[in-house]
Amino acid sequence: MSTDSRLNEIIDGIAVRAREASLLLQERPAASIDKALLLMADRLESDMARLQAENSKDLEAAKAKGLPAAVADRLTLSGKALASMIRGLREVAALSSPAGEVYDGRTRPNGLKISKMRVPIGVIGIIYEARPNVTVDAAAICLKSRNAVILRGGSEAFFSNSALCELFSKSLSDTGLPASALQFIPTTDRAAVELLLQKDAHIDLIIPRGGESLIRTVVEKSRIPVIKHYKGVCHVFVSANADMDKAVPIAVNAKVQRPSVCNAMETLLLDAGLDPQKKKRVINALIDGGVTLFGDAESRKLSDKIGAVDEEALYGEYLDLRLSVITVNGVDGAINHINKYGSRHTDSIVTESETEAEAFVSRVDTASVMVNASTRFADGGEYGMGCEIGISTDKLHSRGPMGVEDLTTYKWVVRGNGQVRE
Amino acid sequence: MSTDSRLNEIIDGIAVRAREASLLLQERPAASIDKALLLMADRLESDMARLQAENSKDLEAAKAKGLPAAVADRLTLSGKALASMIRGLREVAALSSPAGEVYDGRTRPNGLKISKMRVPIGVIGIIYEARPNVTVDAAAICLKSRNAVILRGGSEAFFSNSALCELFSKSLSDTGLPASALQFIPTTDRAAVELLLQKDAHIDLIIPRGGESLIRTVVEKSRIPVIKHYKGVCHVFVSANADMDKAVPIAVNAKVQRPSVCNAMETLLLDAGLDPQKKKRVINALIDGGVTLFGDAESRKLSDKIGAVDEEALYGEYLDLRLSVITVNGVDGAINHINKYGSRHTDSIVTESETEAEAFVSRVDTASVMVNASTRFADGGEYGMGCEIGISTDKLHSRGPMGVEDLTTYKWVVRGNGQVRE
Repeated sequence: MSTDSRLNEIIDGIAVRAREASLLLQERPAASIDKALLLMADRLESDMARLQAENSKDLEAAKAKGLPAAVADRLTLSGKALASMIRGLREVAALSSPAGEVYDGRTRPNGLKISKMRVPIGVIGIIYEARPNVTVDAAAICLKSRNAVILRGGSEAFFSNSALCELFSKSLSDTGLPASALQFIPTTDRAAVELLLQKDAHIDLIIPRGGESLIRTVVEKSRIPVIKHYKGVCHVFVSANADMDKAVPIAVNAKVQRPSVCNAMETLLLDAGLDPQKKKRVINALIDGGVTLFGDAESRKLSDKIGAVDEEALYGEYLDLRLSVITVNGVDGAINHINKYGSRHTDSIVTESETEAEAFVSRVDTASVMVNASTRFADGGEYGMGCEIGISTDKLHSRGPMGVEDLTTYKWVVRGNGQVRE
Repeated sequence: MSTDSRLNEIIDGIAVRAREASLLLQERPAASIDKALLLMADRLESDMARLQAENSKDLEAAKAKGLPAAVADRLTLSGKALASMIRGLREVAALSSPAGEVYDGRTRPNGLKISKMRVPIGVIGIIYEARPNVTVDAAAICLKSRNAVILRGGSEAFFSNSALCELFSKSLSDTGLPASALQFIPTTDRAAVELLLQKDAHIDLIIPRGGESLIRTVVEKSRIPVIKHYKGVCHVFVSANADMDKAVPIAVNAKVQRPSVCNAMETLLLDAGLDPQKKKRVINALIDGGVTLFGDAESRKLSDKIGAVDEEALYGEYLDLRLSVITVNGVDGAINHINKYGSRHTDSIVTESETEAEAFVSRVDTASVMVNASTRFADGGEYGMGCEIGISTDKLHSRGPMGVEDLTTYKWVVRGNGQVRE
C-alpha cells in the first residue's frame, strides 16, 4: 500500500469514527458533556507538570528551528495559559445547552404540526496554527453543542496538542462518552489536511483558525463548508455631529487598547464637515496614545506628524499602533468608504444624529455595526455569549462573534395523523 | 488581450455591478421590489408571443442536436409554463418582506444595547440546467429578499433565458431599481462558470440547481459558499406499532403520487416485529399502485413479485416507480439504516408509540423528520413559506425547504453612549 493511500485510510477512519461518535453524543444526557468538561479542567490542574514537559519538547524544537520569539510565546503552556484554559472549560460547562430547543411552530390547514428543532451540526473540523489554547477552547465549545470534533493543530505544537487531546479524549470516555468525539490528526504531514478537506460525507463544517493565508488555502481545497474568520479592517467614523467627549475615548480605545486583534480600528474616518479643532483633538489624543498616523492630503493638514497613506493599505490590517486617517463627506461618504475598503467585520459611527446613525446602521455592510461604541466590543463575551469560537466574516449561517448556539443547526419536525399529499 | 482575460473581465464586471446593485437595492423601499415583480408578471403576459419566438430557437437547436424529448419538454415555454411563472411572481410579491426585522435584543451590564437585524445576503449566483422557469422563479425569490442575482442557465435554454432576463432587468429599471440587480451570463462558455465561482469578493452565495453531477462540480470549483440540494434518498419506516390505516396510504402516497421528485420515498423500512399480514397489506397496496419492488431476503418472503435488491441501490435515488424494501429491527434498526444509507433529506416513521416517535425524531439525522405523514410534504409551500428556492441537504445556514427568509442573514447592531472596553 502506498504512503498516500495509507494516510487516506487513517484520515478516513478518523472521519468515520467522528460521525459515529456524533450520533452517539446526541443520545447521551447534556449533563454528561458538562461533567466531561469539568473533568478535563481538573485534569489540566493535576497533570500540569506532565503537560508542560510535553510542551517543552515543542519549545526546544522551536528554538532549534529558530522560530521567532512571538511564536514561542504563543506556544508556551505557562501556568497562566493553563489557568485560562481551565477557567474557559468551567465557564463553558456552566452555559445552558442549546440543542433540543423547539421553535417556529405552526399548524397547517391540513392539521400537520410543523416546527424546527435545534440540533448539533454533527462533525466539525478545526484547522489552526501553533496555539495549544485553541485545542482546548475550540474543542470545549464544539463538544458543548454536542458536536464531534477533529483537531488539526500547527506542527510546532504537535507534542503539546497530542497531550492535551489525549487528556480530553480520556475525560470523555471516563464520563461514558465516546472518546472519538474528540480526535487529533496524529501527523504533521500537510497532505493530511488536504485529505481531511475532502471528507464531506462525514465532516459537516470546517473552521480554520489563523492567518489569512491559512484560511485562503483551506477555502481553496475544501469540499466541506467553511466558516471563515478573515481579517478585520475596522473603521470608526466621527461625524460632524459627534459628541467629542464620546468620539475621542472611542477612537483611542478602538486603536490603542489592544491593537493586535481583529476588532481593533485600522482606519479613522473624519467627516469633512467636522470642526477642525475637534478633528485635531481626536488626532492629538491618538498621537499621545502612541499611534503613528498615515492620512490623505486633507487629514495631513491637521498635524505634521501624519505621514502619507498608500491606498493599498486601506484594504489591509496594521495590527499594531499604525492607523490610517481619511476624510469623507458626511455619513454617505463614510458608508461608501467602508463598503469599498472594509472587510465586513466591525464598523462604528460616533454621532448625536439619529438620522445619521440609522443610515449607517442600515447601509454599512458589516457583521457588527456600532453607534457610539468602541469596535473592541465585537466579541462573544461582550455580546453575552459566555464564550466564542471566532468572529465570522462570512454571511452564511453565522456572522460576527460565534458562540455555542452557532455550532448548531435545525431539523424540521412534522407531526401528522396519517396525512398524505393531494 | 487573450480570450481568457477578456472573459474574466466580463465576469468580473458582472460581479462588481451586482455588488453595487445589491447595496442600492437595500436603500429602496420594499414596495418597489414588489412593484417590479408584478410588472414582470404583466410583461410575461403581454410579451408571450415574443418570448415563445425566442424559445423556439432553443427548441429547434435542441431538435437539431437530437436532445431527448424530456429535455425539450422542460425547455418549452408553453402557455401553461408561462402562466405558472406569472402566478409565482404574483405570489412572491404578496409575501411579507423579511429584511429589516430586529430580534434577539439584550442590554449588557455596561449599558450597550445589542440586537440582530435581518438583512439580505447580498449577491447570489444561481447555476442551473435547461429549465427557463428557474430563471424567473429563483430570481423572484432572490430579489424579494433584496439580493442582487446573477443567473447562469444551461446552454440549451440560452435564447429563452436571455429574453426572460432582459425583460426582468427592464422591469427593475422601470420601477426605479438598478437593472443590474438581475444579470445573466451572456455566454454559453463553460469557462465563464469557473470564473464566476472565483469571485468571492463580490458574490456571497452560490445555489446550484440541477443534477448531482452539476452540484458536485460547483462544490469542487467554488471559493464562494454553496448551498447544496443533493439527492433525496427518503425513507418511510412502518413500525410494529403502526396504524395500518395510516401506514398504507402514507407509503403509497410517498412513492406513487410523484415518484420523480426528491421528496418521494426510495426505501420502505418494515419493522421485523410487524405482523406479516400487515406487511403484506402495504406491499400489495404498492404493487397495486404500479410499484416494482426490490427487497432483502426477509422482505422477499412477502410476495414473489419482489426482486432482489443490490446494496448499492440503497444509497441512490430511483426517481421512478421502483422501490427498495428492507426489514429492520424496531426503531433502532430503522434509525441506524437511515443514518447509514440516507441523504439527510426527509424520513418518516409510522407509529402509534410516542416513545418510538420521540426516538426517531431526535436520532434520525435528516432535514425533515416526519411522524405519521407522507415524505411528499417536505416542500416550501406545504410548510407555509409561500415559495421555495430549493430543499437544502446541507446543514449550515438553511436545512430542508428554503424560502425568502433563508436568503437573508443578519448583522449585529450595537448602540452605546460612548462606551469603551476596559
